[in-house]
Amino acid sequence: MTIPSFMPNAIMPLCLHLRMQMFWDDTIVALATAHGVSAIGVVRLSGEKAIDITNTLFPSKDLSKVKGNTLHVGLLKDGDKVLDEVVISLFRAPRSYTGEDVTEISCHGSPYIQEQIVNACIAHGARLARPGEFTQRAFLKGKLDLTQAEAVADLIASNTEASQQAALKNIRGGFSDVLKQLRDQLISFSALIELELDFSQEDVQFADRTQLYQLIRTIKTTVADLLHSFKLGNVIKNGVKVAIVGRPNAGKSTLLNSLLNENRAIVSEIAGTTRDTIEEVINIDGILFRLIDTAGIRESKDVIEAIGVEKSREKMKDADIVLYLFDADAETVGEVDGAEAQLREINPNYVMVGNKADLVVNASEKFSGMDALYISAKTHHHVDALKERLVNKVLQGQVNMESTIVTNARHYASLQHVASAIHDVQVGMDGNIPGDLLALDIRRALHFLGEITGEITNEDQLDYIFSKFCIGK
Amino acid sequence: MTIPSFMPNAIMPLCLHLRMQMFWDDTIVALATAHGVSAIGVVRLSGEKAIDITNTLFPSKDLSKVKGNTLHVGLLKDGDKVLDEVVISLFRAPRSYTGEDVTEISCHGSPYIQEQIVNACIAHGARLARPGEFTQRAFLKGKLDLTQAEAVADLIASNTEASQQAALKNIRGGFSDVLKQLRDQLISFSALIELELDFSQEDVQFADRTQLYQLIRTIKTTVADLLHSFKLGNVIKNGVKVAIVGRPNAGKSTLLNSLLNENRAIVSEIAGTTRDTIEEVINIDGILFRLIDTAGIRESKDVIEAIGVEKSREKMKDADIVLYLFDADAETVGEVDGAEAQLREINPNYVMVGNKADLVVNASEKFSGMDALYISAKTHHHVDALKERLVNKVLQGQVNMESTIVTNARHYASLQHVASAIHDVQVGMDGNIPGDLLALDIRRALHFLGEITGEITNEDQLDYIFSKFCIGK
Repeated sequence: MTIPSFMPNAIMPLCLHLRMQMFWDDTIVALATAHGVSAIGVVRLSGEKAIDITNTLFPSKDLSKVKGNTLHVGLLKDGDKVLDEVVISLFRAPRSYTGEDVTEISCHGSPYIQEQIVNACIAHGARLARPGEFTQRAFLKGKLDLTQAEAVADLIASNTEASQQAALKNIRGGFSDVLKQLRDQLISFSALIELELDFSQEDVQFADRTQLYQLIRTIKTTVADLLHSFKLGNVIKNGVKVAIVGRPNAGKSTLLNSLLNENRAIVSEIAGTTRDTIEEVINIDGILFRLIDTAGIRESKDVIEAIGVEKSREKMKDADIVLYLFDADAETVGEVDGAEAQLREINPNYVMVGNKADLVVNASEKFSGMDALYISAKTHHHVDALKERLVNKVLQGQVNMESTIVTNARHYASLQHVASAIHDVQVGMDGNIPGDLLALDIRRALHFLGEITGEITNEDQLDYIFSKFCIGK
Repeated sequence: MTIPSFMPNAIMPLCLHLRMQMFWDDTIVALATAHGVSAIGVVRLSGEKAIDITNTLFPSKDLSKVKGNTLHVGLLKDGDKVLDEVVISLFRAPRSYTGEDVTEISCHGSPYIQEQIVNACIAHGARLARPGEFTQRAFLKGKLDLTQAEAVADLIASNTEASQQAALKNIRGGFSDVLKQLRDQLISFSALIELELDFSQEDVQFADRTQLYQLIRTIKTTVADLLHSFKLGNVIKNGVKVAIVGRPNAGKSTLLNSLLNENRAIVSEIAGTTRDTIEEVINIDGILFRLIDTAGIRESKDVIEAIGVEKSREKMKDADIVLYLFDADAETVGEVDGAEAQLREINPNYVMVGNKADLVVNASEKFSGMDALYISAKTHHHVDALKERLVNKVLQGQVNMESTIVTNARHYASLQHVASAIHDVQVGMDGNIPGDLLALDIRRALHFLGEITGEITNEDQLDYIFSKFCIGK
């Protein structure tokens, strides 16, 4: 009775080991703060020689003797030449971001000096870090799993409360903890089922089918919830596209300005002046909305305007939400009803908004039976209610923002594969298929689960993931 | 016998004390790193409540108990809301940059998160720092004198080795140590001379005139050397303006490109195409040269070109060095001699450079008796020799770059006042003027010496000096 040698989790440590060997000996350096003249800048080193190299440049004190998590003030010198007065933060492996020895040289915020410090580190044996290489090392050293590492990049890019909170949740484990547990349980079953294959003549069952069935159901539900959360996750990460459409002079540009509280778009009384689609971004309750202003959707003989009109139809199809703005005063009930009918065809996820409601005695009576919101873009009347409507439209029927949310397209793709494999396992068990076929489906599920958390990786994938990071992270 | 109460050094501590009171109670916060998406950013706090405020946001550990110069890793939280995972560098007064309690929160490099952290600090009692306010506090706490504080700004702005080294020298004391010593000695004499005034009926001399004379001479020499160094200091800080002039087709643009190793200027065979002056910057041996390309100085009927020509004369007058480029092949000895005669009038600090020397059998023989350098801009022949000539032209007769150099226009102005006052003291002593008049001149010298190092300051001046700093420094 031998342990099957093809178990995925037995293969990976070897791959990682080989990959780590490539890095083992070299020490990386990079400017970790943004480029530009500022009060301070931070140059970061990681690797076996990080402390040695820093020590060579720091004659004030012998850093080889000091403890980790300590600060040291002094002159940074390259030979006789003073480079700067600096503060050095020293971290010893494994208690550091990367899990290796790390030093951070906090210097004056002169790009010239920062470059000199990086060059001095290189001259003394470090090499320039690739984008994301510090985080990649943290991953390879087991300080972070892959979803956590990816969340670091998301956190740096975060620009709303929702994206920040989703990234922070993932950095602190997020759903990868849950997936890892489920995967470990599934691995045990997989091992038992593959063992059964060695004893196929004897018709034994090492793996308890009831328990396996239970596990499969749990995985299925978890994965379905996560898949479901991606729509919101995507919105959190990339924002919600809102196409603002309506006839010329309905007040689209005024509404855009009212939402933005600035005058980015051209506002004019002349019909059809807003020919280009203008994209502006606003943050409502932590959700990013990309507002797309479009030319009017009226048919026109003006060629340039016609292009604008064609574009606006495209934008409507492409949008997450279409905000249809009509002039509650000037437009007739028939006209607005007609527009709504068109909308239903183009993109059913729309909001009807009657503008210039201050000019009508009772707009909701005039357009009775229509689910519309009445505002005045000019006087900002009910614009807040419109914002609220937009937020509700996004969150409606979605996962609570407090729960775990998949924001990463790579995770989403892998989860879809997991769902498909788990479905096949379930169908296979229902149909009582042979153990060897069942084992294949389970292994497929294990593979894609492992891909999410980085237990299954390949070099190209890793390089791709980390290449999207900043230098110095 | 009472100590004279009007002694300048007795007044200042009181002013400083009053000024410090204004600051005493409040804690300042600012982003210290450059703005932009990056690996990490640093938010800095200084003041009595710096540790308290940071502690409120850092539930992982009680920072009120920890020692100075320590690092702490954990979650930054505003109430229940996680802001980021951070590393906190904690410095306790007086062992910090400002001399107050200081914390530096090293967070992820998301501008959104950095803003949230700064806002959370403000919500818990800090206020946003003004530009340079951290360094201003360091000055007010006596951690730096004024020239050192100013050198911090120079260091951040440094973009060549010379400007970096000059700033570093001044941060570490530079000439202010020498001036302070001389000023202290002069204060003693001043006190004694003013004492003599109380005993004017008795014709006593407390102050040894020979020693005073010796001191005056030392101050005079020191100040003269420092004043002399400013020309180089200014060059180090602001660069050397080099106007490249010459007839059309002499090869000015080609030379500019050869010096720059890139194709910024328009290069063309058509005479007079370079009509606008183009400013490019190169760094030769740590000195910044601003290369100004000009239109040809030939008279022209083309109006646009004529404007270019007028401009080029202005640029020549304004330049630190005029580089006159002539075509060693096509131009006659008479033409080049004529140009040199014009140059002597416009700006005597010029270098004659014969281009296209590769086309002439022996250029130095053709233009015998002329102090010119012969190059080929096209083949880069002798362009390095030209660079060397430019550097020598700057350093010629100047203070050695290793010695103390005044780079600051404010210091230069004060030193000029010191020189004038010291001159008056010397003349007064020679003429045996009454002690009360001598005392006035000495006090004038003391005032301007003190102004340089910040022992004599006024609030407006301080505010002006520090307002030119970065926020967060």
